[in-house]
Amino acid sequence: MPKIVTEDTGKFSQHYPKVAVIVTASVQGRDNAMAAAWHSSISFTPPLYGVSISPNRFTYQLIAESKEFGINFIPFEKASLAAQVGGISGQETDKFQRLGIKTEKPARTKVPVVKDAYAAYECKLIDSKPYGDHIWIVGEIVAVHFLEEAFAPEKILHLERIKPLLYFGSDFYATIDKNSLSFVKKGI
Amino acid sequence: MPKIVTEDTGKFSQHYPKVAVIVTASVQGRDNAMAAAWHSSISFTPPLYGVSISPNRFTYQLIAESKEFGINFIPFEKASLAAQVGGISGQETDKFQRLGIKTEKPARTKVPVVKDAYAAYECKLIDSKPYGDHIWIVGEIVAVHFLEEAFAPEKILHLERIKPLLYFGSDFYATIDKNSLSFVKKGI
Repeated sequence: MPKIVTEDTGKFSQHYPKVAVIVTASVQGRDNAMAAAWHSSISFTPPLYGVSISPNRFTYQLIAESKEFGINFIPFEKASLAAQVGGISGQETDKFQRLGIKTEKPARTKVPVVKDAYAAYECKLIDSKPYGDHIWIVGEIVAVHFLEEAFAPEKILHLERIKPLLYFGSDFYATIDKNSLSFVKKGI
Repeated sequence: MPKIVTEDTGKFSQHYPKVAVIVTASVQGRDNAMAAAWHSSISFTPPLYGVSISPNRFTYQLIAESKEFGINFIPFEKASLAAQVGGISGQETDKFQRLGIKTEKPARTKVPVVKDAYAAYECKLIDSKPYGDHIWIVGEIVAVHFLEEAFAPEKILHLERIKPLLYFGSDFYATIDKNSLSFVKKGI
């Protein structure tokens, strides 16, 4: 079957799965959280993480002011958390209180660590750069929180125990088929 | 169960699934392909895509010279393709010939479009910026290729027909549980 070829990018960001995360930030005790799907590791040494955020987001303002942010990886069972924080603005509402989001103490920053996350990174902002209608926020990971039982001896996610949350766009979520996990050796 | 909290980031990029893509580039008929897991959409308008690449990669050199790159989303059944292109260098080898990778004609650039991809983007380089040990490459998506049958009416991936490829680190791959697909409405 031939592919469709178009210069109309349309809903281009829905062509592939994205990992749904909760981005957190805090300024003088004022916490906020937002859902994000546009993010990635970008360097091993130093360990850097990037996330693309609209400058209109309240969370962006908090990050710009505090120079810190948190990346929280939440399980499929908590998809409603991503959908809820993504659907209201933190400008007038304390989302943590309103949505009953429990947090844990950060180690090196003041960013809220989401208790339901199976892993979370505390990041110190090192750069932010506008690209199109979003700002690319880059932080150095200064502390890692993770559930020990969520990881297999190979240091990858233990899919029998954790269902990672994937976002497909248009409010659709799914998780991994744990039985599909396969080791595929590099090279020829 | 309390989380482990550490400043040792270790294998931090293995805490979550990543979408495995094939990045392609071409200079004067010299094509190359590499596997990448650190990439993301970063802007709607204009449609921008970013990918983090080590400057030591031959593909990086081709992108820097040609100012173009391709992002190819391949299915789980082709995990071996990601593993193979990820395991050899294109400096001495024509990976397309050696691995029998079939390509399709690009529309707006000269980047190879991988025939096995269910979706692919042709990108024109607009920026590249070093962050740590990688370079953050940003391109504007100027053409989109996709298999019509791979997408559902909601314009999201049709999981009955396409198994997206996820990478977990340490040469482990998996795909989505199609039965887990869930609509979760935004807001409270």
